[in-house]
Amino acid sequence: MSDPSDPNQPAFDTVIRGGTVATASDVFSADIGIRDGRVAALGLGLAPGRREIDATDKLVLPGGVDSHAHIEQLSASGLMNADTWESATRSAALGGTTSVIAFAAQHVGMDLAQVVEDYAALAAQGAVIDYAFHLIIADATEKALRQDIPALVRAGHTSLKAFMTYDRLRLADEALLDLMAAAKEAGALVCVHAENHGLIAFASRQLLKAGKTAPKYHAASHPRLSESEAFERVVRFSQFLDQPVMIFHVSTEEGAAILRRARGEGAKVYAETCPQYLFLTEADLDRPGLEGAKWMCSPPLREARDQEALWRALDLGDLQTVSSDHAPYRYDETGKLKAGPGATFKEIANGMPGLQMRLPLLFDAMVSGGRLGVRKFVELTATAPARIYGLTRKGSVAVGMDADLCVWDPSRRVTLSDAMVEDRTGFTPYAGRTVTGWPETVLCRGRVIVAGGTVTAEAGSGAPIRRG
Amino acid sequence: MSDPSDPNQPAFDTVIRGGTVATASDVFSADIGIRDGRVAALGLGLAPGRREIDATDKLVLPGGVDSHAHIEQLSASGLMNADTWESATRSAALGGTTSVIAFAAQHVGMDLAQVVEDYAALAAQGAVIDYAFHLIIADATEKALRQDIPALVRAGHTSLKAFMTYDRLRLADEALLDLMAAAKEAGALVCVHAENHGLIAFASRQLLKAGKTAPKYHAASHPRLSESEAFERVVRFSQFLDQPVMIFHVSTEEGAAILRRARGEGAKVYAETCPQYLFLTEADLDRPGLEGAKWMCSPPLREARDQEALWRALDLGDLQTVSSDHAPYRYDETGKLKAGPGATFKEIANGMPGLQMRLPLLFDAMVSGGRLGVRKFVELTATAPARIYGLTRKGSVAVGMDADLCVWDPSRRVTLSDAMVEDRTGFTPYAGRTVTGWPETVLCRGRVIVAGGTVTAEAGSGAPIRRG
Amino acid sequence: MSDPSDPNQPAFDTVIRGGTVATASDVFSADIGIRDGRVAALGLGLAPGRREIDATDKLVLPGGVDSHAHIEQLSASGLMNADTWESATRSAALGGTTSVIAFAAQHVGMDLAQVVEDYAALAAQGAVIDYAFHLIIADATEKALRQDIPALVRAGHTSLKAFMTYDRLRLADEALLDLMAAAKEAGALVCVHAENHGLIAFASRQLLKAGKTAPKYHAASHPRLSESEAFERVVRFSQFLDQPVMIFHVSTEEGAAILRRARGEGAKVYAETCPQYLFLTEADLDRPGLEGAKWMCSPPLREARDQEALWRALDLGDLQTVSSDHAPYRYDETGKLKAGPGATFKEIANGMPGLQMRLPLLFDAMVSGGRLGVRKFVELTATAPARIYGLTRKGSVAVGMDADLCVWDPSRRVTLSDAMVEDRTGFTPYAGRTVTGWPETVLCRGRVIVAGGTVTAEAGSGAPIRRG
Amino acid sequence: MSDPSDPNQPAFDTVIRGGTVATASDVFSADIGIRDGRVAALGLGLAPGRREIDATDKLVLPGGVDSHAHIEQLSASGLMNADTWESATRSAALGGTTSVIAFAAQHVGMDLAQVVEDYAALAAQGAVIDYAFHLIIADATEKALRQDIPALVRAGHTSLKAFMTYDRLRLADEALLDLMAAAKEAGALVCVHAENHGLIAFASRQLLKAGKTAPKYHAASHPRLSESEAFERVVRFSQFLDQPVMIFHVSTEEGAAILRRARGEGAKVYAETCPQYLFLTEADLDRPGLEGAKWMCSPPLREARDQEALWRALDLGDLQTVSSDHAPYRYDETGKLKAGPGATFKEIANGMPGLQMRLPLLFDAMVSGGRLGVRKFVELTATAPARIYGLTRKGSVAVGMDADLCVWDPSRRVTLSDAMVEDRTGFTPYAGRTVTGWPETVLCRGRVIVAGGTVTAEAGSGAPIRRG
Repeated sequence: MSDPSDPNQPAFDTVIRGGTVATASDVFSADIGIRDGRVAALGLGLAPGRREIDATDKLVLPGGVDSHAHIEQLSASGLMNADTWESATRSAALGGTTSVIAFAAQHVGMDLAQVVEDYAALAAQGAVIDYAFHLIIADATEKALRQDIPALVRAGHTSLKAFMTYDRLRLADEALLDLMAAAKEAGALVCVHAENHGLIAFASRQLLKAGKTAPKYHAASHPRLSESEAFERVVRFSQFLDQPVMIFHVSTEEGAAILRRARGEGAKVYAETCPQYLFLTEADLDRPGLEGAKWMCSPPLREARDQEALWRALDLGDLQTVSSDHAPYRYDETGKLKAGPGATFKEIANGMPGLQMRLPLLFDAMVSGGRLGVRKFVELTATAPARIYGLTRKGSVAVGMDADLCVWDPSRRVTLSDAMVEDRTGFTPYAGRTVTGWPETVLCRGRVIVAGGTVTAEAGSGAPIRRG
Repeated sequence: MSDPSDPNQPAFDTVIRGGTVATASDVFSADIGIRDGRVAALGLGLAPGRREIDATDKLVLPGGVDSHAHIEQLSASGLMNADTWESATRSAALGGTTSVIAFAAQHVGMDLAQVVEDYAALAAQGAVIDYAFHLIIADATEKALRQDIPALVRAGHTSLKAFMTYDRLRLADEALLDLMAAAKEAGALVCVHAENHGLIAFASRQLLKAGKTAPKYHAASHPRLSESEAFERVVRFSQFLDQPVMIFHVSTEEGAAILRRARGEGAKVYAETCPQYLFLTEADLDRPGLEGAKWMCSPPLREARDQEALWRALDLGDLQTVSSDHAPYRYDETGKLKAGPGATFKEIANGMPGLQMRLPLLFDAMVSGGRLGVRKFVELTATAPARIYGLTRKGSVAVGMDADLCVWDPSRRVTLSDAMVEDRTGFTPYAGRTVTGWPETVLCRGRVIVAGGTVTAEAGSGAPIRRG
Repeated sequence: MSDPSDPNQPAFDTVIRGGTVATASDVFSADIGIRDGRVAALGLGLAPGRREIDATDKLVLPGGVDSHAHIEQLSASGLMNADTWESATRSAALGGTTSVIAFAAQHVGMDLAQVVEDYAALAAQGAVIDYAFHLIIADATEKALRQDIPALVRAGHTSLKAFMTYDRLRLADEALLDLMAAAKEAGALVCVHAENHGLIAFASRQLLKAGKTAPKYHAASHPRLSESEAFERVVRFSQFLDQPVMIFHVSTEEGAAILRRARGEGAKVYAETCPQYLFLTEADLDRPGLEGAKWMCSPPLREARDQEALWRALDLGDLQTVSSDHAPYRYDETGKLKAGPGATFKEIANGMPGLQMRLPLLFDAMVSGGRLGVRKFVELTATAPARIYGLTRKGSVAVGMDADLCVWDPSRRVTLSDAMVEDRTGFTPYAGRTVTGWPETVLCRGRVIVAGGTVTAEAGSGAPIRRG
Repeated sequence: MSDPSDPNQPAFDTVIRGGTVATASDVFSADIGIRDGRVAALGLGLAPGRREIDATDKLVLPGGVDSHAHIEQLSASGLMNADTWESATRSAALGGTTSVIAFAAQHVGMDLAQVVEDYAALAAQGAVIDYAFHLIIADATEKALRQDIPALVRAGHTSLKAFMTYDRLRLADEALLDLMAAAKEAGALVCVHAENHGLIAFASRQLLKAGKTAPKYHAASHPRLSESEAFERVVRFSQFLDQPVMIFHVSTEEGAAILRRARGEGAKVYAETCPQYLFLTEADLDRPGLEGAKWMCSPPLREARDQEALWRALDLGDLQTVSSDHAPYRYDETGKLKAGPGATFKEIANGMPGLQMRLPLLFDAMVSGGRLGVRKFVELTATAPARIYGLTRKGSVAVGMDADLCVWDPSRRVTLSDAMVEDRTGFTPYAGRTVTGWPETVLCRGRVIVAGGTVTAEAGSGAPIRRG
């Protein structure tokens, strides 16, 4: 640890020099002086650091905060995700992300406190970036509601997650209200996967009965109205209890419109979308054989008009963050193809990897492509998620903040490919796409964790994030 | 039967002479000539009838069509309604109603076809006015969906009823969609009691836990948002399947607004309200002891602003009919007070009598009071329900229609009282209210069934209505 | 005049026998007995009339009420319309219309009372059907507002017309408010041509500057937003003064949506559309040379989606009537081509003939084609305009109403052509279109005015309508 | 000027030490090092400056940007404002504002280029803070549109202002469209005073006719709907031309709702409100005699519900800035009372002083009171107006930005009074109100311009702002 009062010591552990820095509010040329893992100074012509990183012609942005990732999590169907904390966070780091919020998932019959303890041990062992947890509540028992949630929220786990669909995970309306009431008492945010379960079940059954079993029918099996309906429902529950909710992965124009209306009425509703809904469409599902399975996620990919609507909703503040919803399943018999080559879309796990490509895709569109610009990029991918979820020292570049930083080469062009995937899925749904702008050097609390395209951090070097 | 070609025979069985006739479209002075139970002529100076009814200074309107009444129906909780077909339809007749649609109610485990057969026998035995059935489906079995519903719809039972709340009656979303799909195939309308079950359960539990057990808390136990939520849901199901629905007993401004928006989008959504939502408010529930129980119905009474909104919705066509939702429970240990004097609001049956007072209340407001006028009165209480439910020869005054007619004395003032109640509940929630305008003489298929304030028809003289 | 008490006299002057009669509310088989110009009886097997009209297999509907027609009216630009009262009303009669409301048009500097007197004389001389006037106010002088309007409204001229566009005719906002306030005081309805003048002027200038002068640019010269804007403005004026307005000739989906919203808020806003907006589109304007001029009207023809929106608005009651906006200009140097063969769209008179074809076009779509049905056809084309404008004895078939009737042959197929045009324009914009259903015999106050495709009434036999 | 490479020189001209700094994005403890008028460094333990300002327990925020002030401007009625550039900007500085945008006002017949030249001379002579101009266009001549505007926009005057009301100033719709089209071509923003002129004229006339002449009737003379109407109109013009507009001084809930809807549709509409609409209501106008004149502004003060709606609209981003609309008229015969003691509300100048109190009022509510918080305070009062109007080096605290800074004592309580007013109006409409938080020291481009409650800058030391 450096001693800034010692004149023989360099003033800074590290200086990132000569770059263009951006926050959600400002863009400016400045050197960044880092000391003890935090940003100690921003200025022109800062004194030398022990280590110097040249950022000439580079952008220096806050490391990404990915607030929605499934990592080393038991899925509803008993299937393990492909990733470990190590593999998942290595992929995140390579993509410029330095903080992640993953899911400690209680299933029916499981003790919530124990779930969190076990999950924390896994994360501590493997993570190379900093992390926090959302707690999935699938069994809203008295103990969970009255005892575990208050204690866990006091311990900093201030976000709970509920599903309105999926057998074995979903909470019926009354239980969801119970959870929201408990969250209100404890002071936690409730995150929701909001789709109408009955409509999906009905539509799926109709499709299968009609012999429509290919992956591409996954889109129709989650009708657009199933999102609208569930949004309306959870918005009203939020209004009834005056309890904030975060609606995950908005996929449709209609869904975004409902949020706009609800927020206009004063509802405490927050929402995110994900790159897949901004860059892919249901046409991507339509591939020979089962290959479309790689593009299966829930809610499913939608249409071009939805992409436009989601961009506008981001611009207008109706949606506040863009997360990955990283849900890693391999395209083999351990993952997507578990049910064999004759699987129907109902037997294929939903989810796609996203931790690694989230920021490059968005940087390409927003910064290189100019859509909404670099300040909004920083806000959506780092500042806003940090703020909404209480990661008080993450998500921006300011004196005193954790030195979670990402040096972007704005002119580097990279064609995405399966080969560059660091997580264990072995594929990216964006393979073949070329992006402009790439995260070159990544620091987490002042430590360089990615340099020259390689992860330099060790498993377990990530730390749990204290939430405010 | 008269023979119009015989010059020695009077041209008409009955002539109602000298009255002012109104339809949903027109108001005009005319005699009405009745032959063989139907309207044979409308004109000035008609030839004499065998029987002459003087309607000078009177309004002659179509007999009322009440499209929502619980009669001699096993309730969800096993409790019998107070009424028999005879008592209920006698009360209807006294109030100027000549057609009623009541509920053949399947409960879980019951065979739908048998339910209808049994119920038809009860009606045939007791009814003094004409009748049809809505079929309540609480158990959407394969047999019910694939076999019974198609056959029953072909037999003329073209309206099905589903509940979104109430234990033992409600259909979960997927079952509701199954029912709507079956209705679509068979060509039936689906009527829905639309409230969010979980929200009611949650709110009720919270109230009881807080010691708020009096009847007046019934209103808060069905939050306004529980109606909004369920409306949004069923509207979307209707849009998804392109299947018409009739939303029963709209009680809130917000509910009416949702319907307006949905219809504007082209949704095939119809809706009704009931006199209790137009003339009573939740303040009526607030009485000493359990007396408020008399004013308990579901959805509960709301506020003055809702009344205004519902009147506007009727004016604008967003709601198309006004029915009674007659649900007769005595205010004694056989009915409302079954759970004893310490009953909480959750243990008191919901529902109030309404067949008898529906038309006098509405006539008073709409015709005597001038709100929307006599043509709209006829439309809402007779023509529109007849048309929506396929009662092709009911609901208007025109040549060839059944001579279901009601001679109203527009100047007679009557103070409503429990003593005048003809059904078996023994009370009316409108006791003490004075109305102007009273149904003096009522005819059903040309027969005088009410004269001088007395029912003159015999039990069983009502007939099943063939539906188009 | 017949004496019904004389047994030797036929009971009726005329009996229309064996037809199917329709009102806005009912459809039924009945003979219609006419006495003294009015409907005296509706019934089965009515006694014989002096004259018998066989209506077997025919529909007998109320004669049409066309509430928007420019007849023998000086236009804003000093150009006379092509029609006289005789030619215009002859064409109306041939199309099944028996009542018309035309414009007594005050221009700047003209005395309103004198205008009405002069115009009444023209009508009395030529009309073959019954008629009333809207009073165009282009000069809202103190005399007009304080003296003439009150007196004329008392005399039964209960509808005033204002223009928000057109040089020499339009009222600026303040004058429009003055007129609406005067109308409120006098108890008159204000009808409005609502388009934004500045936007039209600006867009026209831009088009001409760009050399876009052909008739097809007329559509773009009246931007869709010019309708939306003016609707919003006049709706707010109506709300401010609590004064009813009738918005003429709605042409766009957005316009209809504004009306729906305003009515939902309780605004006293009525509206009409015209056949040209239901059956033609702006593509019709795109013809060689100046021929598109025949399809020029204001607001201009729009798009297919607008047609759908207008039909829905009619269905939902957001629009209440369909009028012709008959505005007859010949396609020659006396009319459309007055400015010569090099005329720009700005120099060509707007308007098309419509009195004759309004009902056949709508009958074809609504009755033969089944869109909305015969009851709605009657309502939109006869009952509703009669009621809105206070023509108390017009617009329906009921005892005591004027015997203005039209016997339609529902199976007759007719191909419309310029040759069959009875007005003086010499063309119909619907030439070449084949319709099913044709008005065969037309009666006005019991007199046959059209028989066998020929007008049998004499000029001047039409009468002014007393308004309620 | 300091030389940072000279080790014997202090690194900074000035260091503000030990404060809590806030931007629109971040709040952090840091010293601010200033060099050559700009922020050179932010850090902990910065090297000493030539001048040190202790900010312990203080907030250091960007100096305010007031984007709407009438200064030394000829009013529409020929009446001079009370302020000179010196007096107005001194009052601004005392309130923590360091940049102002005032109006170079062209009246009918005046040459726009000359107007701007003359106005710049006045500003250069008097201003003690930095400044830019909006150009009021009251005469949209060909020269103004085709020649002056393009040249002036190129010279950095990138915002034009149009009035939709006020005689002698307002542009009719067509001229407004012309101006917007010229602005689009030149790349300028169009700011609009949007009220319906006719409605105000009509309502005013009605009030005066009824003898309602007191200042309190000023509110009713600008009906709420006059704002709604004009907003709808200008939004549509903006959509038609795809040209951004800034709607000034939103005063009503309905107005804010229109903006929300328009922005949701993608309209490029920006908007501001002012402290008077957030802190005062029309009740403030109701005072004895003419004293209410002090609270007269246009649009007028509204109701408490509007305040709530405006706060929500600020929160949601529907409104982006809060400006003062400083319009200084003395409450004497040189200003408000020019028409004497018997003046009607129509004869009293509209406008109130606001440059000085804008920030203290908002700081008190937002920072001390916690409403929306300090980041949003910075955004609304400095960052957003700087960005929207292209003041690229103003409005935030970041390396390289102009050192326009304000040191706030967050705990100082001050009761506002007429005596502390620095502008020449001699009164503040907020007299008697106590606020918590006060701007203690103010710097403009590194120079201390306010210290210890006294303006230390000289007239003319303010500079024109180069706009990006």
